[in-house]
Amino acid sequence: MTLTVSVLGATGSIGRSTADLLDQHRDRFRVGAVAGGRDAQALARVARELNAEFAAIADPDSGPALRDALSGSGIACGAGPSAVIEAATRDADLVVAAVSGAAGLSPTCAAIRQGRTVALANKESLVCAGDAFMRDAKRYGARLLPMDSEHNALEQSIGTGRIDDITRMTITASGGPFRTATRERIAAASAADAAAHPTWSMGMKINIDSATLMNKGLELIEAHHLFGIEAERLDAVVHPQSIVHALVTWRDGAVTAGLYVPDMRVPIAHCLGLGERLSIARGKPLDLAATGSLTFERPDEERFPCLRIAKAALAAGGAQPTVMNAANEIAVAAFIAGGIGFYDIAALVERACEHFAARFPAAPADVEEALAIDAEVRDWSQSALAA
Amino acid sequence: MTLTVSVLGATGSIGRSTADLLDQHRDRFRVGAVAGGRDAQALARVARELNAEFAAIADPDSGPALRDALSGSGIACGAGPSAVIEAATRDADLVVAAVSGAAGLSPTCAAIRQGRTVALANKESLVCAGDAFMRDAKRYGARLLPMDSEHNALEQSIGTGRIDDITRMTITASGGPFRTATRERIAAASAADAAAHPTWSMGMKINIDSATLMNKGLELIEAHHLFGIEAERLDAVVHPQSIVHALVTWRDGAVTAGLYVPDMRVPIAHCLGLGERLSIARGKPLDLAATGSLTFERPDEERFPCLRIAKAALAAGGAQPTVMNAANEIAVAAFIAGGIGFYDIAALVERACEHFAARFPAAPADVEEALAIDAEVRDWSQSALAA
Repeated sequence: MTLTVSVLGATGSIGRSTADLLDQHRDRFRVGAVAGGRDAQALARVARELNAEFAAIADPDSGPALRDALSGSGIACGAGPSAVIEAATRDADLVVAAVSGAAGLSPTCAAIRQGRTVALANKESLVCAGDAFMRDAKRYGARLLPMDSEHNALEQSIGTGRIDDITRMTITASGGPFRTATRERIAAASAADAAAHPTWSMGMKINIDSATLMNKGLELIEAHHLFGIEAERLDAVVHPQSIVHALVTWRDGAVTAGLYVPDMRVPIAHCLGLGERLSIARGKPLDLAATGSLTFERPDEERFPCLRIAKAALAAGGAQPTVMNAANEIAVAAFIAGGIGFYDIAALVERACEHFAARFPAAPADVEEALAIDAEVRDWSQSALAA
Repeated sequence: MTLTVSVLGATGSIGRSTADLLDQHRDRFRVGAVAGGRDAQALARVARELNAEFAAIADPDSGPALRDALSGSGIACGAGPSAVIEAATRDADLVVAAVSGAAGLSPTCAAIRQGRTVALANKESLVCAGDAFMRDAKRYGARLLPMDSEHNALEQSIGTGRIDDITRMTITASGGPFRTATRERIAAASAADAAAHPTWSMGMKINIDSATLMNKGLELIEAHHLFGIEAERLDAVVHPQSIVHALVTWRDGAVTAGLYVPDMRVPIAHCLGLGERLSIARGKPLDLAATGSLTFERPDEERFPCLRIAKAALAAGGAQPTVMNAANEIAVAAFIAGGIGFYDIAALVERACEHFAARFPAAPADVEEALAIDAEVRDWSQSALAA
């Protein structure tokens, strides 16, 4: 049976790895829609390569370029947010939601409201509007498959077990480039220093989040929503080799864990398999004897305050994770631009969380409200930085 | 709902840990039968403690002592092999088969032929008569739950996955007390040196098997039968901390693993839970940050030839594992008695495998045939040592 897969965020890192796997398993998959942000050439290339039915580009101005690039291919196309929503809601057995940032919220939400099976690689959906998303998933009968390596490893470690029987879910953090650095050295770090990720190859924003450990904080919030598990049973441990991605401790003391070489195609293949295991032609297998040693450390929340702030936001609930995420985006952008220092990221995020605690006490009721909060916090954060 | 559990080998190490857990969960379990070898006092104690319905002692001469020790308790009892078979075949939701050595074959087989769910901690059943056992389990609808830490970790790592989707099952070995020793030092080792197991507290025979790595070889053979997986997809890796017990590599490159502190109550609780997770009052949780480092090495089959011999026996199939196991028991006993050196164990086992290859080409058809081969190989091995 051929399965129809749509890929939102097809030109990004996850999207390209997904395309690679879909290409390896052409007998198994048909590609419905692909959607991208603003790179019409790249989107047309992946649409042609996968023989997609429909291609949507978010940037309205890139519509003509996309149409040109697809001419003669027989692939339909559209431009602008409504075209992306069309891509998200077309009939599909699986929608890969890999648009990064807040831009991913609306299309992901649209796919969920169609009751689709959604492989989720967009962190913001759960961080900014987790309660609303999970409520919609339940109401519309959508199934969420975690595509992030840590959450996918949690999913694989849980298997058919009951969440109630779990005493702890642990995700691992590489520790980032400053794992062993002093606070003084970290304080003086530039964006280039912070972007040198030791084991994963990712984008700039996520590299900085990895350096601050905010990335792990965001993932704890995601895990809370995805698996319906409260903050007290969640934690993160530093594991520099990035081989063990998550561990689940059961009531009886047994621990199940998900491991793999740092290659996003592994969790992507797990999602695409929909319960079956795909082979991956180009992945290298894990060889623990060759790896030699797996090490683990407690994260240092003094040197990495963003993890502490994220845990506090998770524990506080309401709109605090939404606020935190928006402030973090602005702060990280300012850090990348060289406008603020490393620890100014945490400082701004903490100020935003405090400032908006009273103004936005409740969790956003829907994606629209989440986006409105997001926009207001971004504005405030920009002003705070300019002040 | 109260579940009835019978415990064969109730006075041994596994049996006592099982009793400990049954005692912790009295609301959940009723104890049907308990069976032991020759220690009437210990058996009576556990029978009283668990309020068992029936107690059986294998040694016929210990019958009167058992009867005396149970007088006034209302617990029925019997002595001799037939009493143990009665214990194995009484109605029960779960039979814990923890009699060690060849003595465990007949009662374990009897329980399987009743179609029981059997938690298997008797290695010899699968090593000596694996084909026959698995055939009987299928024919009589018995379910086997692996209670050994490595196989239980495999079971937990497999979950509801398909064996066909597995590219590798890996069990770990502590490496034993001679992991870092030179061949010369190992060659001169005494039984006391060899019995100093670094992480597990076990009996003398299994400590020696752990030092020679024969134990891992036996476990690979068990895994082959339990999970229906061929030798080519099985391997062992040395992991001195004994925290990760087994790993399963899937076709898509993902690896799932089973971990826990070295405490047999963890896999026992997993079996007793029958799909639910029991809490363990006295177990300490795994703390990877406190553990710090998990290391892995390829086993050295030059210094530890028993692993190579066991792999060859598994690959050869037929009665080779039965022969190997019997010769190993005699050789280990002679080593413990001080009659032979460490490397004489492997030498004798290898000679026996060669000697009997033509005489017993086929796998034993049933437990009786396995026991007959076992007896003949033991006799031959004794003679070979005396010569």
